[in-house]
Amino acid sequence: MLKRRKTKTVDIGGVRIGSAAPVAIQSMTKVLTTDISGCLREIRKLAKAGCRLVRIAVPTRADTVALATIIEKSTLPVIADIHFSPARAVEAIEAGAAKIRLNPGNIKKTKDINRIIDACKSHSVPVRIGVNEASIRDLKAGDVSAGKRVGLMLKKMKSYAALFEKRNFEQLVLSAKSSDAARTIEINRRISETFDYPIHLGLTHSGLPEDAEIPSAVALGTLLAEGIGDTIRVSLAADAVEEVKLAKKILSSLHLYPNQHAELIVCPTCGRTQIDVIKLAKRVKKSLAGVSKPVRIAVMGCIVNGPGEAADADLAICAAGEKTVFYKHGRKIATVPLNNIISVLHKELEKF
Amino acid sequence: MLKRRKTKTVDIGGVRIGSAAPVAIQSMTKVLTTDISGCLREIRKLAKAGCRLVRIAVPTRADTVALATIIEKSTLPVIADIHFSPARAVEAIEAGAAKIRLNPGNIKKTKDINRIIDACKSHSVPVRIGVNEASIRDLKAGDVSAGKRVGLMLKKMKSYAALFEKRNFEQLVLSAKSSDAARTIEINRRISETFDYPIHLGLTHSGLPEDAEIPSAVALGTLLAEGIGDTIRVSLAADAVEEVKLAKKILSSLHLYPNQHAELIVCPTCGRTQIDVIKLAKRVKKSLAGVSKPVRIAVMGCIVNGPGEAADADLAICAAGEKTVFYKHGRKIATVPLNNIISVLHKELEKF
Repeated sequence: MLKRRKTKTVDIGGVRIGSAAPVAIQSMTKVLTTDISGCLREIRKLAKAGCRLVRIAVPTRADTVALATIIEKSTLPVIADIHFSPARAVEAIEAGAAKIRLNPGNIKKTKDINRIIDACKSHSVPVRIGVNEASIRDLKAGDVSAGKRVGLMLKKMKSYAALFEKRNFEQLVLSAKSSDAARTIEINRRISETFDYPIHLGLTHSGLPEDAEIPSAVALGTLLAEGIGDTIRVSLAADAVEEVKLAKKILSSLHLYPNQHAELIVCPTCGRTQIDVIKLAKRVKKSLAGVSKPVRIAVMGCIVNGPGEAADADLAICAAGEKTVFYKHGRKIATVPLNNIISVLHKELEKF
Repeated sequence: MLKRRKTKTVDIGGVRIGSAAPVAIQSMTKVLTTDISGCLREIRKLAKAGCRLVRIAVPTRADTVALATIIEKSTLPVIADIHFSPARAVEAIEAGAAKIRLNPGNIKKTKDINRIIDACKSHSVPVRIGVNEASIRDLKAGDVSAGKRVGLMLKKMKSYAALFEKRNFEQLVLSAKSSDAARTIEINRRISETFDYPIHLGLTHSGLPEDAEIPSAVALGTLLAEGIGDTIRVSLAADAVEEVKLAKKILSSLHLYPNQHAELIVCPTCGRTQIDVIKLAKRVKKSLAGVSKPVRIAVMGCIVNGPGEAADADLAICAAGEKTVFYKHGRKIATVPLNNIISVLHKELEKF
């Protein structure tokens, strides 16, 4: 149902980005880059969690030296995150980075950019132009409207991309990030109308998980639902694996990531519910901890939507009282006392 | 920046729904409706949390009797949730319900609907036509495509709304819910193109909070970001107050709900970060527990985006090492040892 916006394709160390490829999840290492074994440990954890690209900060010369070793041993393609220093960009490219990210807010001179383009061309390294609202120093405290901020970000993106296009360099990925969900949505809509390069989505500086998860889901979910976004990075002030888990949840909700676990549909309960459906749902959920089959299970509390959700689920429990009705592919197959329902459910699950 | 779709206005016991009014948060009571004091307790908690409308299930005659007393004492306008029984609808209207919700999947006869319309007209009670994918029995197990499901929901909505329009009854609110975020987005886009009645948004049967929060934020966030939605109900298999809290977070992220608390912007940390920013952010967050001022505070770990986010925040801490730079409205006002930063922050907060 969801139609992705058509884009060019960019290859990042074997991971293809663009509308012809699945949306790729990426994250960043959070330990110091000179902590090579710490970085590699993070990368292995990220890869295991479903991350497909990893970005690494290289603020100093010591970091680009460490980068070369990390790239050699990394199980994921490594992207170098460059700020301020054209020298770091060239070093990272020569160290074997699969992509570099440049920030138009802090590498601005055409001469510097041309030098980086030359290095990218000779090593076939793509570039993300990563505009950050907070890095645009023309934006001043509080006094700039949302529309003007979006306009400035777009202008920055256009003039920067033009420098690459002038040199016939089209291996570009674009991103524009803000810590505000509404502005993130708007700037990416504008970028998607203006360019056909793949887009990297992210809400940045969004905060601790309890504050950041919902705005991230709103911003990235909206854009993905509008067909925009080819790689995503969720930013959380938390372990990077949590970023990958949240990215997977956002993508899954729009069928952009395969569901690998038992999915639990539960009615929210209301004044029609005769038993404690939430307690039952929690029991079912707990019992599913070890189950990695992509089955859809409904736990419902009444006859209004119970049979309908049952028809849509692989297995369903409709609990109208102490006796529960058990459904398989929408067909009633048993009436089961509430106390036995977990074991009946698991007996059926084994057959899947 | 966000332009809401223009709609008619519907008055629900003094709460106006439609594009001329703020998006209203609603929820449902979860105890049995005959538990009058339990219902009233839930309603008080919901109102305190920011809920503006409450819906109550009335499956039996005893429930509509209880409803009359609940309505008399409720601090929020009460909506009666009707299924299967036209008699319950008329009883609820006579009991003083501020709106009724009808389900086209289970009240189908024109004669019954006309009887309800007559009662609504004589008591000036608006109606929500609440289509539920799981209540549409023409949908059969597994074998119907997403597009067909959306088409069937829209068809059901059109034919049902036509019955009301034929009788010149236009006090309508429309909703179409599914447990699937992508289909919820699509059906509501279609409804918004077809009608100009206010739209009630919800992702239904979404599950326990850990499973339901992200799909709810994606579905409702996308629609709201597209200007669709005039009242929202988040469904969680959890305490109804949690539904209101999540609804507020979704709305706040798009500036559709005023921020009443200290908002914390935190960089996600990376290989540039010299100190434990996440630990510092958690300390700041904990210290803000009692603060109900709408201030924006940034906790940043380096110079790439630190000064930029500081410019955008009321107060900011840029922690590049053991000394932190403290900003007020984007202006550096002090260099503070990491250990003292919380007390410096709170001294400044008191001035707001």
